Amino acid sequence: MKPEAFRAPVPGVEYVTGSFMSEPVLQAALRDIDVVVHGVSTTVPSTANADPLADIQGNLMSTVRMLQIMRQQRVGKLVFLSSGGTVYGVPSVEVVPETHPLAPITSHGIVKVAIEQYLHMEHRLHGLDYVALRVSNPYGPRQGCNGIQGIIGNYLWKIAHGEQIEVWGDGSIVRDFVHVHDLAELCATVVEAPIVGCFNAGSGTGASVNEIVQAASAVTNRRIRPIYKPGRSFDVPRIILDIRRIRSATGWVPKTPLIQGMRHSWNWIQGHRSIDAIA
Amino acid sequence: MKPEAFRAPVPGVEYVTGSFMSEPVLQAALRDIDVVVHGVSTTVPSTANADPLADIQGNLMSTVRMLQIMRQQRVGKLVFLSSGGTVYGVPSVEVVPETHPLAPITSHGIVKVAIEQYLHMEHRLHGLDYVALRVSNPYGPRQGCNGIQGIIGNYLWKIAHGEQIEVWGDGSIVRDFVHVHDLAELCATVVEAPIVGCFNAGSGTGASVNEIVQAASAVTNRRIRPIYKPGRSFDVPRIILDIRRIRSATGWVPKTPLIQGMRHSWNWIQGHRSIDAIA
Repeated sequence: MKPEAFRAPVPGVEYVTGSFMSEPVLQAALRDIDVVVHGVSTTVPSTANADPLADIQGNLMSTVRMLQIMRQQRVGKLVFLSSGGTVYGVPSVEVVPETHPLAPITSHGIVKVAIEQYLHMEHRLHGLDYVALRVSNPYGPRQGCNGIQGIIGNYLWKIAHGEQIEVWGDGSIVRDFVHVHDLAELCATVVEAPIVGCFNAGSGTGASVNEIVQAASAVTNRRIRPIYKPGRSFDVPRIILDIRRIRSATGWVPKTPLIQGMRHSWNWIQGHRSIDAIA
Repeated sequence: MKPEAFRAPVPGVEYVTGSFMSEPVLQAALRDIDVVVHGVSTTVPSTANADPLADIQGNLMSTVRMLQIMRQQRVGKLVFLSSGGTVYGVPSVEVVPETHPLAPITSHGIVKVAIEQYLHMEHRLHGLDYVALRVSNPYGPRQGCNGIQGIIGNYLWKIAHGEQIEVWGDGSIVRDFVHVHDLAELCATVVEAPIVGCFNAGSGTGASVNEIVQAASAVTNRRIRPIYKPGRSFDVPRIILDIRRIRSATGWVPKTPLIQGMRHSWNWIQGHRSIDAIA
């Protein structure tokens, strides 16, 4: 397996490749480490619902096992990428704060909630410092195009290859999209920041799927006619994250407007049209 | 394995014995069944924290597997015994309603929350009717004495055998104790009732461990000097369940005052002193 799918290995980074479900792999990887940023997921929302047992085993049990190894090897801090789009279920308010009830309706969301709660327990009982970032929908350069997650990358990739794009439902569902540069900056910030707990990590603004289609049309300068398909039972209608908590805790603010971020993605794809679609 | 630990098999009941973690056992047991009352737990709070992976595998994965089998075999209703004492974590109010945030600090509670959420997902996506009863601390005749769960049964059993009883902490922690006859009546009620969701199932009143010691002294007519031990990190200080939701949904009310229920337990133990302690 190549350490990077879309670029040369980054100088100064030591890459270790192995299964997240393997105890020896984790034991070796966690030796003499100060902070873990846990961005592994063995599933996406749609595949997790089809096989929740694999979701529990691959994500929940592996993470709990990693917590035990971190405790043994005295790794004191963990940044975990949770899911702002699924832990709340169907939101009762327009803009969702962290105090909103956790009522996930997908296995993906249920497992993220359980992981957050094990982090909280590890903090209380064994002093782990943790930050769970409830990330909305990240997008940007090097986003793969696997057809099942990440509509901005998917749409732009398909447009670049002359394929038609698909919309689940009538395109009215609203999501919070955060540019990957903003998210990466936030991860670097919370690695250093003396904060503990769960924080929303999005743009704080919403865009409908139809607005994404329009923006895609604008940045690609093409007329786009999507194929409309039936809505999916596990998609919540609207969700925008309230990001005031992380802003006031760290001073972080997302800087990339959606249209600018999508233009950035489009330029990147234009320079990489020969690469095969990848997960 | 004997079908009943402390009495003869009940006439008219078909007993099937096997591991809850076995798929073939569940498939056979769930054939031509209308309603499942799921009261299995492979752990108690203290053992679950020591081995959360076993807790996740034994309870969460087995229950999710059972949901899949129920769906295949068209079993449309499930009553699940959840945990009123652990799903809320450290309560922010004296008397806890179902809307209180779910913030468990034990693996036992985290797994119960995850199971409740899978039930909710199964209801939404596949129409399962479910009732999750967030049970407080049940007690009564035939309660085992395994030394790790159920202080009323434990205390009375030890007193009957001339042993000293132990108190974790200073005895000020408050719990909601519900008599098993009241709980059994509630299970029978919700099997029939057209309700769906999570409901607290307790007495709605609290008693401190010191009050339990005093009541034990009264019903046994003995002077009791407990051994005080250090408090346990996973015990929340106070929790009483608000039971108005289940009352108004079903009309059920708990009928057994604590002192009367403990006298009943004591009489039962007096008639069974020759039985070995059992889990």
